Amino acid sequence: MTLNVALFGAGRIGKVHAASIKSDPRARLVAVTDVMEEAAQALASEHGITVRSASEILEDKSIDIILIASSTNTHADLIERGVAAGKAVFCEKPIDLDLERARRVRTSVAASGRPVMMGFNRRFDPNFSSLRTAFVAGEIGKGELLAVTSYDPAPPPVSYVKVSGGLFRDMMIHDFDMCCWLFGLPDKVTATGSCLVDPEIGAAGDIDTAVVILHYGDGRIATIRNSRRAVFGYDQRLELLGSEGMLSVENQLETTVRKSTTAGVQSAKPQLFFLERYMRAYETEWAAFVDALSNDTPMPATVQDGVNALALAEAANLSLTEGRTVTVTAQMTGQAG
Amino acid sequence: MTLNVALFGAGRIGKVHAASIKSDPRARLVAVTDVMEEAAQALASEHGITVRSASEILEDKSIDIILIASSTNTHADLIERGVAAGKAVFCEKPIDLDLERARRVRTSVAASGRPVMMGFNRRFDPNFSSLRTAFVAGEIGKGELLAVTSYDPAPPPVSYVKVSGGLFRDMMIHDFDMCCWLFGLPDKVTATGSCLVDPEIGAAGDIDTAVVILHYGDGRIATIRNSRRAVFGYDQRLELLGSEGMLSVENQLETTVRKSTTAGVQSAKPQLFFLERYMRAYETEWAAFVDALSNDTPMPATVQDGVNALALAEAANLSLTEGRTVTVTAQMTGQAG
Amino acid sequence: MTLNVALFGAGRIGKVHAASIKSDPRARLVAVTDVMEEAAQALASEHGITVRSASEILEDKSIDIILIASSTNTHADLIERGVAAGKAVFCEKPIDLDLERARRVRTSVAASGRPVMMGFNRRFDPNFSSLRTAFVAGEIGKGELLAVTSYDPAPPPVSYVKVSGGLFRDMMIHDFDMCCWLFGLPDKVTATGSCLVDPEIGAAGDIDTAVVILHYGDGRIATIRNSRRAVFGYDQRLELLGSEGMLSVENQLETTVRKSTTAGVQSAKPQLFFLERYMRAYETEWAAFVDALSNDTPMPATVQDGVNALALAEAANLSLTEGRTVTVTAQMTGQAG
Amino acid sequence: MTLNVALFGAGRIGKVHAASIKSDPRARLVAVTDVMEEAAQALASEHGITVRSASEILEDKSIDIILIASSTNTHADLIERGVAAGKAVFCEKPIDLDLERARRVRTSVAASGRPVMMGFNRRFDPNFSSLRTAFVAGEIGKGELLAVTSYDPAPPPVSYVKVSGGLFRDMMIHDFDMCCWLFGLPDKVTATGSCLVDPEIGAAGDIDTAVVILHYGDGRIATIRNSRRAVFGYDQRLELLGSEGMLSVENQLETTVRKSTTAGVQSAKPQLFFLERYMRAYETEWAAFVDALSNDTPMPATVQDGVNALALAEAANLSLTEGRTVTVTAQMTGQAG
Repeated sequence: MTLNVALFGAGRIGKVHAASIKSDPRARLVAVTDVMEEAAQALASEHGITVRSASEILEDKSIDIILIASSTNTHADLIERGVAAGKAVFCEKPIDLDLERARRVRTSVAASGRPVMMGFNRRFDPNFSSLRTAFVAGEIGKGELLAVTSYDPAPPPVSYVKVSGGLFRDMMIHDFDMCCWLFGLPDKVTATGSCLVDPEIGAAGDIDTAVVILHYGDGRIATIRNSRRAVFGYDQRLELLGSEGMLSVENQLETTVRKSTTAGVQSAKPQLFFLERYMRAYETEWAAFVDALSNDTPMPATVQDGVNALALAEAANLSLTEGRTVTVTAQMTGQAG
Repeated sequence: MTLNVALFGAGRIGKVHAASIKSDPRARLVAVTDVMEEAAQALASEHGITVRSASEILEDKSIDIILIASSTNTHADLIERGVAAGKAVFCEKPIDLDLERARRVRTSVAASGRPVMMGFNRRFDPNFSSLRTAFVAGEIGKGELLAVTSYDPAPPPVSYVKVSGGLFRDMMIHDFDMCCWLFGLPDKVTATGSCLVDPEIGAAGDIDTAVVILHYGDGRIATIRNSRRAVFGYDQRLELLGSEGMLSVENQLETTVRKSTTAGVQSAKPQLFFLERYMRAYETEWAAFVDALSNDTPMPATVQDGVNALALAEAANLSLTEGRTVTVTAQMTGQAG
Repeated sequence: MTLNVALFGAGRIGKVHAASIKSDPRARLVAVTDVMEEAAQALASEHGITVRSASEILEDKSIDIILIASSTNTHADLIERGVAAGKAVFCEKPIDLDLERARRVRTSVAASGRPVMMGFNRRFDPNFSSLRTAFVAGEIGKGELLAVTSYDPAPPPVSYVKVSGGLFRDMMIHDFDMCCWLFGLPDKVTATGSCLVDPEIGAAGDIDTAVVILHYGDGRIATIRNSRRAVFGYDQRLELLGSEGMLSVENQLETTVRKSTTAGVQSAKPQLFFLERYMRAYETEWAAFVDALSNDTPMPATVQDGVNALALAEAANLSLTEGRTVTVTAQMTGQAG
Repeated sequence: MTLNVALFGAGRIGKVHAASIKSDPRARLVAVTDVMEEAAQALASEHGITVRSASEILEDKSIDIILIASSTNTHADLIERGVAAGKAVFCEKPIDLDLERARRVRTSVAASGRPVMMGFNRRFDPNFSSLRTAFVAGEIGKGELLAVTSYDPAPPPVSYVKVSGGLFRDMMIHDFDMCCWLFGLPDKVTATGSCLVDPEIGAAGDIDTAVVILHYGDGRIATIRNSRRAVFGYDQRLELLGSEGMLSVENQLETTVRKSTTAGVQSAKPQLFFLERYMRAYETEWAAFVDALSNDTPMPATVQDGVNALALAEAANLSLTEGRTVTVTAQMTGQAG
């Protein structure tokens, strides 16, 4: 049986998902919707499908899955409407910029019993997933120190920064999820940050450079370093020290060409940007979603995971503002009483 | 205007090309043919196209391109019938195992004036093409020593070896083309080889381990090393020493994960096998073919290139048999009188 | 004119310095002293010199330099007695475990006007010094994020830990100096740490795993990660993100041999331990000391540098104990009023 | 008991050996001789020893070892005179440029029963020796394809080239020995070469670029590539494909610093030149010689090894001149009846 999929959002990331669906024989893209009529129409004709309104899609019983790749402020509503309409939902991160709202979505989804997966794409990157497999298999013993390096090649426009929710919610959210995925939810968060890349970002009340420490009750420590600018490319690395060794993920380079001259030995830059670096991750992510649906197994990235990452971002913001270490409470992650 | 394509051969490599065509908005796969009815039918239903006979395809005026991915012994005839029917032709290497026959194809194609491209996929690998671009741009001065390392992960079945035309024609043909692409046609060939991997290959009259030197009139030297077995994977490297530096292509690894333990630092193996290593090359190759067709520019890999590589394989066979260095004549490459 | 040198301490590090002196034609080792008679005697006969008491050495006007490589608790006194006796002094880090005492040494040395160099060996490692040269030359623009990774292969005996002054003063002191050397003195320190490697270390009141953030007034951030155990060897790396690029120092491996098998590609481990990793640094360090003496130029690592690193260690201890970010005051570094 | 050593030759390589002897407690440098009076005197005063004539040295019964680091044309005579005088001999390669003369030395040495070691320094490089250890231990199964890359950073003066004996005897001799050390003596040699770097070298009757194939009776193949110029530095690599894997030695880089900018990722150049690259090899080589002397075990590089390498150079010259593959006979290596 083929799963019918409707796509919300015909932008850059929507197109990536459309391609994944197209190459998956188990699914069929049947409709697209976007507030930008033209974008929706272009994607529709490329895929030979129709543009429909959100309501039409949600009411159509023949549609099994909605894939939410529209703007962040629509995610929470669409997830709730999707599960209410009985759909399976795949939603790009984040659930919402507001943690309280995200927690309500979690409650709604739990009540609905419908499967929802959050698009934490890095979990499906072959490098990170292979590292995690080795770690979980005990290949380096017990985890001790985790360090995530995550630099964007260049800052986004300030107009985007203003509505992004800030660096912790917009950019470091991926790294928070990575740490939770490998080490679980931390007990405390210490954040520091500054504006070194673009003064306009500072003027907009945000930071562009940040370091966060995640403290675990048993003594494990994770650190995350973010910058909005690495002129050499998209820098996505991780290393994990354990009691019996270390695992690390290096960047994928554009080519393996090396040039040796009197100036030294020159290699290629890291792949630029996330669409290149995580191309395989997006395909695998989709397949994992359909696998979980088909086999009725737990989603590999849940709404709770989305809430957790957002709670860490909120704790980081608080830590930065108040200049102190912040405890991550069960209330923050919606797990309390 | 969309180009209609018919595919000859629904095997492993045929499927790769079908996927490339599918993702190219300028082309449309309309028909497939294969002596294996079942394979043809499977590919046809996956792509929503029809299975047709070779003759029907060639007679159909609405078909612009034939893509030949059938068995080697059909290549020469299909190229000739294709151009005779006015089609543009993309053909997997080699033209034929027989050099004389290949030269006749070259003559037919030239007479027809139709565009034909040979599928030397490695020319479109981003690593090799980026190396060549840097070399042609003079980034390492004048070329002096070229070394190609090309090891398969494991030998093919002996049944395949028996009809393969031998290591030089079947395997090293890619490396001969690589050398011609970078250094041009050499003047002389010295070949040596032995059977170290599988005695059955020796019993079938072939070798599985070989080293060839290509001598250029101006003193440049190229070396090619082949083995049918590298247990760590598909080893595809190249280095080029020039008067002002060196360019090299390293293997692409399966992941960038590194594990450091008391045993040392362990990295991933090279990607296995050609479908993985050259995945991007196949896509780029198809796009380059359609580009050349659309812009009416020279094909990036011609029938003459196919003849040249085959002539070097023949010279290598002669060198191996007679234990002497063999001169590559204009007659061998069909360029004479 | 040859400089006459007397060595305090005939242990492991004393021997390293003796070898550096031996290979320097500008200096001559003339005496050694050590509370361990036997060690002193062994070193003396190897070098054809005499064992003398500390007092004899300090009173001998023909001795130009004293090199202090004795136990930490003797450093402060010997520096003060050395400069009082008119000697030039080279002293292994730290000045003292007590910051107040170190500051007094700084005052004494300043009053004496004698040249004193602290043995921060990593500044002379060809890797770190080459990185710093490139950074100071502006090759990556303005510095933004600095990250130091520094893991020992295995924890020292608990008996040593008990008198070591704790991880921050004993081990991370090198990394504090590295950050000061590259970024200057920070404004604030945030420290976290735990005992994951050896419970005995925790029982002794120390930690074996630590992460520290150094905050700079202009927004730059440095992070230091320490562990007393990396089973794969001595891990000494650094990376520095700037506005126009990144500089990094990787480990030096024991050999450049790689083994590719079905298990992957295996490289050698990092050099073990500091005597191997910093062998060249020790030689260069000594030469830099004699250069500065001979040319009457500033010492490349001063007593103030030693005080600064110790002040950061003290701030880190305070931060760890009180769970808050600690401001580095001018009083701490002895620069106040 | 300390071994007394006299040094023949106070040039660059003589100084290297003098330093090795100095740091070895089992040996003592007692005399030096050189036709360049000044050089001999300088080395003598640095080491506090006396300059003596060759005859005085050879007649002095208290001298145990002579180390021959004088010009090539003196090697054969000095070895013979040394063993005749009952000395142990360490001699820099080659024995002589004339194969017939080298074979006579072999006979003399054998007759004398005195221990003689040839200075094939690369055997003692930690990278190459570690590769060999792994290979001999069977870590990659049976050897199949061996490839040696050996490029000098820049050609020597033509005046040197003229008396050098030619590229095969002067430069590739090290690589011939490396192949013999790993694979044993080959059965046949195919050589090609040209003059691409400096026309003056060609005018002097020599080549500066060469590729040689060594054929082994059991099908194994070794290739050697030489160039007198690699502008990026001294390129010394090796790879060895076996039935169960591959071992390779990469270059040692000047530093481990990497710089990532918009231009790519830049690493340091290989160490320049042999004194840097093989610094540790020279020390280990000397220690291995004294070990063998002390333990009365076979020398790790014998006169026969020197004859073998020279025989391959002669076969390569013949192959180059006559354009054919040359068989290595037992007569060439002096092993015949």
